Amino acid sequence: MPEESTDQPSDAITGHMSPEEFRRQGHAAIDWIADYWASLDDLPVRAQVAPGDVRHLLPASAPEDGEPFDAVLADLDRVVVPGLTHWQHPRFFAYFPANSSPAAILGDLLSSGIGAQGMIWATSPAVTEVEQVVLDWLAEALGLPEAFRSDGPGGGVIQDTASTATFTALLSALHRASGGEARRHGVGGAGWRVYGSTQAHSSLVKAAIMAGLGEDAVRTVAVDPATQAMDVDTLHDAVVEDVGAGLRPLLVHVAAGSTSTGAMDDIAAVAEAVRPWGVWVHVDAAWAGVAAVCPEHREHLAGVEAADSFVTNPHKWLLTTFDCSTFWVRDRAALTGALSILPEYLRNAATESGEVVDYRDWHPQLGRRFRAVKLWAVLRTYGLNGLRAHIRSGVDLADHVAGLVAADERFELVTEPALSLVVFRLRAGDEATMAAMEAVNASGEAYLSHTTVEGRAAIRLAVGSWRTTRADVERTWRALQEAAAAQA
Amino acid sequence: MPEESTDQPSDAITGHMSPEEFRRQGHAAIDWIADYWASLDDLPVRAQVAPGDVRHLLPASAPEDGEPFDAVLADLDRVVVPGLTHWQHPRFFAYFPANSSPAAILGDLLSSGIGAQGMIWATSPAVTEVEQVVLDWLAEALGLPEAFRSDGPGGGVIQDTASTATFTALLSALHRASGGEARRHGVGGAGWRVYGSTQAHSSLVKAAIMAGLGEDAVRTVAVDPATQAMDVDTLHDAVVEDVGAGLRPLLVHVAAGSTSTGAMDDIAAVAEAVRPWGVWVHVDAAWAGVAAVCPEHREHLAGVEAADSFVTNPHKWLLTTFDCSTFWVRDRAALTGALSILPEYLRNAATESGEVVDYRDWHPQLGRRFRAVKLWAVLRTYGLNGLRAHIRSGVDLADHVAGLVAADERFELVTEPALSLVVFRLRAGDEATMAAMEAVNASGEAYLSHTTVEGRAAIRLAVGSWRTTRADVERTWRALQEAAAAQA
Repeated sequence: MPEESTDQPSDAITGHMSPEEFRRQGHAAIDWIADYWASLDDLPVRAQVAPGDVRHLLPASAPEDGEPFDAVLADLDRVVVPGLTHWQHPRFFAYFPANSSPAAILGDLLSSGIGAQGMIWATSPAVTEVEQVVLDWLAEALGLPEAFRSDGPGGGVIQDTASTATFTALLSALHRASGGEARRHGVGGAGWRVYGSTQAHSSLVKAAIMAGLGEDAVRTVAVDPATQAMDVDTLHDAVVEDVGAGLRPLLVHVAAGSTSTGAMDDIAAVAEAVRPWGVWVHVDAAWAGVAAVCPEHREHLAGVEAADSFVTNPHKWLLTTFDCSTFWVRDRAALTGALSILPEYLRNAATESGEVVDYRDWHPQLGRRFRAVKLWAVLRTYGLNGLRAHIRSGVDLADHVAGLVAADERFELVTEPALSLVVFRLRAGDEATMAAMEAVNASGEAYLSHTTVEGRAAIRLAVGSWRTTRADVERTWRALQEAAAAQA
Repeated sequence: MPEESTDQPSDAITGHMSPEEFRRQGHAAIDWIADYWASLDDLPVRAQVAPGDVRHLLPASAPEDGEPFDAVLADLDRVVVPGLTHWQHPRFFAYFPANSSPAAILGDLLSSGIGAQGMIWATSPAVTEVEQVVLDWLAEALGLPEAFRSDGPGGGVIQDTASTATFTALLSALHRASGGEARRHGVGGAGWRVYGSTQAHSSLVKAAIMAGLGEDAVRTVAVDPATQAMDVDTLHDAVVEDVGAGLRPLLVHVAAGSTSTGAMDDIAAVAEAVRPWGVWVHVDAAWAGVAAVCPEHREHLAGVEAADSFVTNPHKWLLTTFDCSTFWVRDRAALTGALSILPEYLRNAATESGEVVDYRDWHPQLGRRFRAVKLWAVLRTYGLNGLRAHIRSGVDLADHVAGLVAADERFELVTEPALSLVVFRLRAGDEATMAAMEAVNASGEAYLSHTTVEGRAAIRLAVGSWRTTRADVERTWRALQEAAAAQA
């Protein structure tokens, strides 16, 4: 990787780079990234270090005097790269992808250079308005309901993560259900109840804890063993039972693509089941939602018109550098009612006119960076057709993997493949399944993660990187076959 | 600003850039930033647009087919720049600085290129270990207590914002005070009480709302009218009264540099006042904490040994691109006890060994980017001496402004200057004060913000950008004088 000598740091006293030095070092940083990407195929996907290995390569204190930026680049190679699990590697199939594209990275870089704060419209109007427009674009591209667009009572916002979006949805639901009492007097002992399937993301329980409801407030609903989707009759019965017991049903979490197996809850049926009680319907499509840029991959969002809020993460499968979690609500008044605070130093004419959106009231944080630039750059440089081609490629590769699994009698699919996620196991049992996965992971050849389904271990293979080719999934499959054979 | 024709996008179908194209566009993006920065001095600081102006320049839908990245760069100039308030402008003195340096921007760029997720140690060990080391470096550089270092029971973490850090502190306090009952059963009607001065940041109330305690749980403590610091006797009396009424004192927010005037609560005295009741002491030094890199600017942190948690934002005054809010706790068990959730797909040997830190349990979010790179780059390329020179320059410029204010009989200082923040007004009254500020802001010459102190309007001038020179503050001062004269 590039390394140039720097005999004359631009300013030995303060460390500030001159404009010329910034250009030179900036070009070097870009080149470092390009070289790093070019090297990925030859690197072990999973880090090969033990706890403390990275730490021990670093000095105990910050330097008193500045070093040239080249020293940081050199230490990225020496200290950091060996300690990384390479999420951008073409054979990273664990968890879900955190798929970063050149366009997104450069968009985010430009946002850093601009360095504006978008906490309210008045602090930098373009930060807010570009975000509104880009969220409207994406809502349309995903086929989301008109009610989610910014020209009606709803609207979209970029959150950092789906965890924060789910938490924000819960606070909005509390505000609506309590008529504002919760923000004034707290959640008290009102007996609020939150529902999600056994497969709901862990952020639902975390949100209930953070909102002061506690883990006990989350009622877990059984799933259909075959599909892992929420059993809606069970949900309905649970709500009826809770209401009968004097509890207050508040929010239902709908997994439109669960983390474990990509299970798709039936949004329309869930919404219908809870309708009589005015329960907030939050659709968590963190991973699978972006697939809806393809008209043929929208089935899992059927019924989304009935949702109160919806989240999907372009930073997973839609090529947009983390963090970029897009969140929409049908009624922004519930959201801003829950979270608005207006200290004197942020009072301004635009806010008082009611003509603008102040995104500070749409999430827990006050400060916010100009994250819309990276999503704007992705949507424009790929175009919707480019994004569709990307999604289709992931689905095709997963279908190919599923075919390979089905054709090898030592393996079996655990659930039907969901979009770009394949969940499978060795017929020989949990121990063999985990050992095979661990052998592949330890080799560095590819990186997979595990889950349990109906109490049994399973391997997850989530495609989604724009770098992944058919050769990459076939190489990974051969490694799994060899690991299975080694156990026989 | 640079614009090159692109006759052959690297891949007309998918929009993916070839490595060569990424290098070319990456260099162009770096050059765009350098050119933008060079243009700042000639741009109006505050955006000159009306609501909707930016939005109306953008199409209603995302493009079907991809455009070259050059088109995005061109639209930054055409659409975005006129709609920005330029936070990196040398005469941006509003709010607090969001001070971004070349080193931080390039560090963040490299982090984007790496694109790793650090939710747990195992998902990319270097992300966690570099962060631990860099937070230890900064704790030492600021003179924070040993207990906050990662080799003891405490430790540091990068949060997105101080709002999130304060919220996290509150959740940790609830966990400790309730012995874990809060996370299991909710906050209920336990009568929790949170304390902060009338000058405490609005994020304290927001945190109380989000945690389910409600606005009513925050008891506001009066300040000394001259210093705007918390009246500790009043705090003590309030706690005694609340305990007598059966309420449960939970957390006290100590402003080590308030937003309005930079007021410094007495950490040691506050901690002493609440000690008998085991109240969690959270020090919010979001803006002023980083000044402690200079030994002579640590007075406001005296007594921090008694704090349970501490937050300061390198993304304000310490040259590190947003977001980078550094948060330390004395006892990480309270924090992780409050927030840990371990779904099956994140189980791993390193976590079970207890040898590693999983930062997912240190904040509300699950996913997290490699933010330590930018802070590492800043600490290394400036060195502590470079950072001290930067802080001292801000303080010196503020002292210079305070001298100019004191020398003009039409103006008066409202409070003693606090580090790099000067708060002043026109003797002619609130209307004249606001009109003078608005005239300067509207001219685009400089950008200031306002507050109220003891019920009267005041102008805040917060220095802190590395670009700001003596000439910039003098030019701003002349503009204020002219605005005052125009009213006379």
